[in-house]
Amino acid sequence: MDGVKLHGFWASPYSSRVIWALKLKGIPFDYIEEDLSNKSALLLQYNPVHKKIPVLVHGSRPVCESMVIVEYLEETWPQYPLVPSDPHERAVVRFWVKFIDEKSLNVWTVYRSVGEEQEKAVRDSVEMLSILEQHGPNRGKKFFGGDDINIVDIAFGAVAHWVGTIEEVSGRKLFDAGKFPRLNAWMANFESSPMIAENLPDQEKLREIFARLREKRLSSSTYE
Amino acid sequence: MDGVKLHGFWASPYSSRVIWALKLKGIPFDYIEEDLSNKSALLLQYNPVHKKIPVLVHGSRPVCESMVIVEYLEETWPQYPLVPSDPHERAVVRFWVKFIDEKSLNVWTVYRSVGEEQEKAVRDSVEMLSILEQHGPNRGKKFFGGDDINIVDIAFGAVAHWVGTIEEVSGRKLFDAGKFPRLNAWMANFESSPMIAENLPDQEKLREIFARLREKRLSSSTYE
Repeated sequence: MDGVKLHGFWASPYSSRVIWALKLKGIPFDYIEEDLSNKSALLLQYNPVHKKIPVLVHGSRPVCESMVIVEYLEETWPQYPLVPSDPHERAVVRFWVKFIDEKSLNVWTVYRSVGEEQEKAVRDSVEMLSILEQHGPNRGKKFFGGDDINIVDIAFGAVAHWVGTIEEVSGRKLFDAGKFPRLNAWMANFESSPMIAENLPDQEKLREIFARLREKRLSSSTYE
Repeated sequence: MDGVKLHGFWASPYSSRVIWALKLKGIPFDYIEEDLSNKSALLLQYNPVHKKIPVLVHGSRPVCESMVIVEYLEETWPQYPLVPSDPHERAVVRFWVKFIDEKSLNVWTVYRSVGEEQEKAVRDSVEMLSILEQHGPNRGKKFFGGDDINIVDIAFGAVAHWVGTIEEVSGRKLFDAGKFPRLNAWMANFESSPMIAENLPDQEKLREIFARLREKRLSSSTYE
């Protein structure tokens, strides 16, 4: 088995998930920044179905889909466990990862849409946050995982750090710290953690690129 | 640890996934049929987030989300393995389970919609089938899993057995056996397998209920 490579894109929350897991586990890797308007032949070869980053390549074998990659890292490098060992607790974290993956699609819709489509996406995003506030990190614990970051924190971190950007670019409020005190505390804990703090995309640069992406999307003829 | 209970609904593909996994592994269980228009207090207590079947209860601990349940069964009852033991092969099957879970939402949209929304769902459903035809069961093998059923077969079986019903109810063609010969052979193998053949919902009854559900959905004032 050879080294580890990651094909990613700096502004992608899905790339960040994989980077965080690699850094937390202390796995050395080469990072290949992809130009999403001109994807590399290797990326297309490794992920012919979705043609998307992130792709992790371990030796010559590609793994696609951010949370599938995180589970692969967990099973291959057990240090700094991200998934509990008890089968029932594993099922619970997988439930929340799936919940976050599915429901956070609404957050991305907020910055790409207008009108009724955006209204609905705002409502659904706020509902997701409300549910996570209610069922999320245990009282007195820093993270969804307890005292240490786990796979749910990684999944949600890739939404939470982007929410401010989406709000500014779309002009819509999603995260009200007064209404979501537990998530607000979680966010401060997560973003100041070792390995996370130094691997968060810069907010100002995120705003620039997401504003550009929104403009491009809304002016595109394929927008319905 | 106590016995196993499953809260399900006979016509639900998601219930069937769990039933197939339980039967293949030979796990005894009590089945509780839910009335989806009047869900049991227990179901709401066990799955407060989605309020949906299927819910597996092992002893007193609930597990929600069909494919999360199948992974839980795999980790708790290793007999008749549904997930490969090699971490890279595990990542590959998880990639396909996620692909099927996400893309098959389009198939359900076909029966619940009309006009441009339905057109798009038909196109996306056919694209999903084309990709599975291309990347699916290996030549010469009976199943996605090789000679035995695995977790990908279970995920896709819960789409494939319902496609004919969706086609009849919506009047739209999705599955062309001539264009999808490998999937067609897979379907015959899957539906005639022990434990699967005797646990498939009746096609005629499925047509009746899905036709009723379509009518209800299209006449509802919430339909956009």
